[in-house]
Amino acid sequence: MNDDTGGTTDPASTLNLSEELGHKLRARGWTCATAESCTGGGVALGITSIPGSSDYMVGGIVAYSNEVKISALDVSPDTLTRVGAVSAECAGEMATGVRARFGVDIGISTTGIAGPGGATSRKPVGLVYIAVGTPYRIEVRELRLSGDRGTIMRDSAKAALELAVTMIGAEALETE
Amino acid sequence: MNDDTGGTTDPASTLNLSEELGHKLRARGWTCATAESCTGGGVALGITSIPGSSDYMVGGIVAYSNEVKISALDVSPDTLTRVGAVSAECAGEMATGVRARFGVDIGISTTGIAGPGGATSRKPVGLVYIAVGTPYRIEVRELRLSGDRGTIMRDSAKAALELAVTMIGAEALETE
Repeated sequence: MNDDTGGTTDPASTLNLSEELGHKLRARGWTCATAESCTGGGVALGITSIPGSSDYMVGGIVAYSNEVKISALDVSPDTLTRVGAVSAECAGEMATGVRARFGVDIGISTTGIAGPGGATSRKPVGLVYIAVGTPYRIEVRELRLSGDRGTIMRDSAKAALELAVTMIGAEALETE
Repeated sequence: MNDDTGGTTDPASTLNLSEELGHKLRARGWTCATAESCTGGGVALGITSIPGSSDYMVGGIVAYSNEVKISALDVSPDTLTRVGAVSAECAGEMATGVRARFGVDIGISTTGIAGPGGATSRKPVGLVYIAVGTPYRIEVRELRLSGDRGTIMRDSAKAALELAVTMIGAEALETE
């Protein structure tokens, strides 16, 4: 879904997506929170850059270490041992964990390898998992991004916002 | 890296400060964590934009609501009732809280009014408190910033990074 490469991404789109997310959350009367690893706060920054976002944005966790993923987001230590922090399972547990911890409707998570270090033979730089949990379901996406660290961080944040916007729009249709 | 929130501030300086912070933390063998309100994740994003920052950056909390300030950072409800979230006391408690919760050496916090809404007769847009806690002391600064929401958020993040860099440099001198 998000295969942008290089440093040519329009930076305004993070703001546009954040604005659209705000509109959709307001329309549903929903709140949100973030659980970020590889984006390091970029999803929360996008959301909170919109004036009035404190109406629906409750807060977020930047869970850089595995210890914080466990202690602040209730990610299972077994998941981290078995498949690692950069995995669909971990992304899903982070989104679920932040929904429960912060008592919000929408949880948005990211975990991946922004590089330039951190790659393994099976997990290359640019491998990112994003997840969004709603009151009805949770969806996880695997991304294979390229570019430098800043580009991967930014494109991951954009993809997570985009998934949230799409899912909230779909929920609204399904439940109306 | 995150120059998409409007304004005219040189975006490189957040990265330069984050790089300098990383050097100083590595030199001391110290770890850090963030507790952000008005910067919405911008301090964490700056720190994590530096390659290898996971060596010293453990994580952070974006505490947008008062409930999260209390539940995730142990800010005293009495402080919030007495002087409010935008106060020197709250900034100090956020920095202390994240140091304790995440078990890190350095806690960096921000709380303020980024605008355009949220001002009161005694607390104008641009009033921001930042705090940094080290193993030896805690310092809080009051800022009076101007500009649009993006500028105030970014300048607050820069000021917080700057205070951390200065304090860690001073600690190193005092204890050597």
